[in-house]
Amino acid sequence: MRASQIFIPTLKETPAEAELVSHQLLLRGGFIRRLASGLYTWMPLGLRVLRRVERVVREEMDRSGAQEVLMPVVQPAELWQESGRWEKYGPELLRLKDRHQRDFCLGPTHEEVITDLARREIHSYRQLPVNFYQIQTKFRDEIRPRFGLMRGREFIMKDAYSFHMDHASLEITYQGMYDAYQRTFTRLGLNFRAVEADNGAIGGKRSHEFHVLADSGEDAIVSCNHCDYAANMEKACSPAPAVEQEAWLEAEQVATPGIRSVNGQAKHLGIATRKIVKTVLVLAEDKPYLLLLRGDDSLNLIKAAHALQVEGLRMATPEEAEAATGAPVGFIGPKNLPGSLPVLADLRVLGLRNFSTGANMADLHWVNLNWERDLPRPDAADLREVTAGDACPHCQQGTLYIRRGIEVGHVFQLGQTYSEKMGLSVLDESGRDALVTMGCYGIGVSRVVAAAVEQHFDERGIIWPAALTPFDVGIVAIHARKSPEVAAAAQALHDRLEKAGYSVLLDDRDERPGVQFATMDLIGLPHRVVVSDKVLAQNVWEYRARRATENTLLSEAELMAHLAAGLSGAADQEQQKHQEQAHG
Amino acid sequence: MRASQIFIPTLKETPAEAELVSHQLLLRGGFIRRLASGLYTWMPLGLRVLRRVERVVREEMDRSGAQEVLMPVVQPAELWQESGRWEKYGPELLRLKDRHQRDFCLGPTHEEVITDLARREIHSYRQLPVNFYQIQTKFRDEIRPRFGLMRGREFIMKDAYSFHMDHASLEITYQGMYDAYQRTFTRLGLNFRAVEADNGAIGGKRSHEFHVLADSGEDAIVSCNHCDYAANMEKACSPAPAVEQEAWLEAEQVATPGIRSVNGQAKHLGIATRKIVKTVLVLAEDKPYLLLLRGDDSLNLIKAAHALQVEGLRMATPEEAEAATGAPVGFIGPKNLPGSLPVLADLRVLGLRNFSTGANMADLHWVNLNWERDLPRPDAADLREVTAGDACPHCQQGTLYIRRGIEVGHVFQLGQTYSEKMGLSVLDESGRDALVTMGCYGIGVSRVVAAAVEQHFDERGIIWPAALTPFDVGIVAIHARKSPEVAAAAQALHDRLEKAGYSVLLDDRDERPGVQFATMDLIGLPHRVVVSDKVLAQNVWEYRARRATENTLLSEAELMAHLAAGLSGAADQEQQKHQEQAHG
Repeated sequence: MRASQIFIPTLKETPAEAELVSHQLLLRGGFIRRLASGLYTWMPLGLRVLRRVERVVREEMDRSGAQEVLMPVVQPAELWQESGRWEKYGPELLRLKDRHQRDFCLGPTHEEVITDLARREIHSYRQLPVNFYQIQTKFRDEIRPRFGLMRGREFIMKDAYSFHMDHASLEITYQGMYDAYQRTFTRLGLNFRAVEADNGAIGGKRSHEFHVLADSGEDAIVSCNHCDYAANMEKACSPAPAVEQEAWLEAEQVATPGIRSVNGQAKHLGIATRKIVKTVLVLAEDKPYLLLLRGDDSLNLIKAAHALQVEGLRMATPEEAEAATGAPVGFIGPKNLPGSLPVLADLRVLGLRNFSTGANMADLHWVNLNWERDLPRPDAADLREVTAGDACPHCQQGTLYIRRGIEVGHVFQLGQTYSEKMGLSVLDESGRDALVTMGCYGIGVSRVVAAAVEQHFDERGIIWPAALTPFDVGIVAIHARKSPEVAAAAQALHDRLEKAGYSVLLDDRDERPGVQFATMDLIGLPHRVVVSDKVLAQNVWEYRARRATENTLLSEAELMAHLAAGLSGAADQEQQKHQEQAHG
Repeated sequence: MRASQIFIPTLKETPAEAELVSHQLLLRGGFIRRLASGLYTWMPLGLRVLRRVERVVREEMDRSGAQEVLMPVVQPAELWQESGRWEKYGPELLRLKDRHQRDFCLGPTHEEVITDLARREIHSYRQLPVNFYQIQTKFRDEIRPRFGLMRGREFIMKDAYSFHMDHASLEITYQGMYDAYQRTFTRLGLNFRAVEADNGAIGGKRSHEFHVLADSGEDAIVSCNHCDYAANMEKACSPAPAVEQEAWLEAEQVATPGIRSVNGQAKHLGIATRKIVKTVLVLAEDKPYLLLLRGDDSLNLIKAAHALQVEGLRMATPEEAEAATGAPVGFIGPKNLPGSLPVLADLRVLGLRNFSTGANMADLHWVNLNWERDLPRPDAADLREVTAGDACPHCQQGTLYIRRGIEVGHVFQLGQTYSEKMGLSVLDESGRDALVTMGCYGIGVSRVVAAAVEQHFDERGIIWPAALTPFDVGIVAIHARKSPEVAAAAQALHDRLEKAGYSVLLDDRDERPGVQFATMDLIGLPHRVVVSDKVLAQNVWEYRARRATENTLLSEAELMAHLAAGLSGAADQEQQKHQEQAHG
């Protein structure tokens, strides 16, 4: 295709609205345009990239045996009322009324619709297992849409939903989808990581997130430097150390005037922060809970919510903490706490000896407390965020490290949550009603485009992986309007390359070579071939890979061989890089 | 693909909700399922058909030089307020508010969004002409959604918008799109007709609708039996006959006690209905107009609205008519009408001599009135609906006939309506601001699926055109669960056919042959091959085309030749049929 035939509105300046590199470069390269907050139009170049993502996703879904369907964007409220999410789902669910004042929403996800379809159409164990997927426009009314495609309001998802007679069948499909996701992201040329995630309140047994690794990622993901273990921060854990062996010292109260912080206490008392048990007051639906953590640990609120089996857990304000405990903030502690506040400790707190904590009176702390001797051993669960350097819970040999990731996929065992709420059961082999077990599987198709850019760019622009580039090869015809020979040779090369199966963008615009080169670099095509009077005189082509800094003069046979090797080689390299990372 | 691997929930009974054949058969064949009123899920088989339509549409759009983009479904109200359609567009525009209480709508069309994009991105004549298209989900809140995909609320459109420096450039692209639509619907195997349509109040010069011919069509379309002339009812016209030559008779008033109807008058007065000038009172924004038509003609309200240059024209109630004229309904006439009511006559009324009409008093009519002599000649325009047998306005030789059509496409010259309202201008060659001229072009992608069924079915089910069928060939394996030979031979044939480039559905289900045949007929695959122990013993295949009533025994070489000829032959036949119709 000639550049004069495709609308590529590049920008010289970085738009002020764009913080993330992907947002900046996708705007500057003319891939997308903003219509309104969180709403983007895919321009011709961007849509080419999106379609390539869709194609790989579709091929791998089909290969996995999933069946493509297409459900409506607009969903009736009745189904969400049945599942209970009409109430629970916050303002991110965009609700609307039709002309008859009936309630609907724009689907942020399709569990309700597919479960409704399944209960109407699936009646026998003989119809199971089955796995439906769609690639479809979704809407989530983000309070502050930002980062371009990364967190837009309208976006494109691949979502799949599987139905099973039992958990064993779900496990097989789950693994099949996990493998399909591995193949998908590998084929897309992304450096990614599958990590264990928590199923949370919704039930089900297993879930994994797929993260594209990028410094700008919103999520922290945890990996072991020795084994395959990887998890997100809500799921990642580290073995609690053994109980300390030091001798019990005598407990006593020590004046700590105005000293409310852990660091302040450690300094004032001359002890390590880990020897301090800090208290954190949290609330779920106005019910308070007291959490205990080591002074050197941080609370993970999602872990706490799961451990307490509550939803919507939040930190208490100082006023709420004092009202719930009767003690001044900074001096709250588990010993002799007035009232009957539920207490939950992090597992590592149980291993402490001779620890310090607040005495529930202003300016007073306990030191040298010990469980059982001075206060009862509380219930405990994993509440802390892991930190880099923690021991691996899986192999016990490696240590954990933390990287940033962009979540682009999620596989999730739903179990029977929706089947129960919406009455999805089938007749089993013995003719009895049996609740159906479900899984769901998402890929953020439009987000993949942004994530790929976050991982593949330099100061000049985007560097598309071979599988995602809008065109395989860019041809720059130098002063083509003045040189009919250049114009003809560039067009002929374009035609030969397209015939050889490459998609080609021929820059035939009446622009200075510097502008042409800058455009090619900005839009990130992997291969660039320059056609000028000079190279024509030498009977060669001037080639440069997008990542290279030098030109190479190649005969056409060499160019063809180079492209063929480059495209397959690029894929191999990406795959190799991924595998190294996966075991790195 | 094996039938056991694709979910095809066929129904034996015709769902009570479905009136139209396409709605019935698409539900019965398991192509679609209803989620809520006007909202449908595309099941695996239906989605395969939809994708085939999309593919042909996309290929022909690309071939025409249009560039594919993808705009959001959710659109900000501000743009619709700018164009004036936020007020004008009725309750079919589904309006909604986001969490910040800002107004949005679900796009039923994208003129505003694309015009906004163009005014941001297009600044110079050098960037024109350009033509953007998308294939996208749209929403129109129909008051009474019905007929399945034919008039759903959520549906899939291909919509294109072109931008030009002048009308001559628009004409070129308009013709290009017209040609692309001809190619598209021809390739899809549809018997269709392009008809002239009226541009109405929106301005612009030309528009054409593309109709699939089907008895169930909602629209009447008019064609000449001698030339290419074709138009919809709002646009179709017929030459007014010459002024009658009979001698003037003496005008007089005749008592017509209680005789209000045209037929009643004709009988009572002993004259032809065409000699009666009937009056029709209409209102636009509460302003009344008196229309005059021959007694044997019918008013086309849309023609009248265009002639009067008003919007929202409607018939007056009897009370409104009497209030506006001061005369009793049934006896209203243009002679000595009290007040200053605007009067507009149909062109054919002017040709009358010695006509009859109401005398504006109860039970009294005039007879033998003549223009100029008895009352002034009124302004006139084409207000009547053409009828079968009218003379052709184009060739003047043929006569018109009327068929039913389903509108599946529309090409439309918008002119400068949106450019003016939304301020879309560019610098011309001399550096001056110039308003941009626009065209728009739609195809009802999901409606095409239903329209194809309305045109291609029999009592047993759907008969898909070759271009639309979800699978090219269906293989029925008889008692495959009991005969390993049949199962293996059917699978091997399936594999060979797929390798030869056909998409194949292999019915390997554990069903009676009668059920298998009925399913194949219902879902409408063009070619059926039966594999049974009997035919294996004869070393042949049992073949039947969907339209045939007899089986043919074929060797595999014969089968392959037959399929190859059948697929290309079918396309040829369709094309030939279309051409015959177009000139028929």
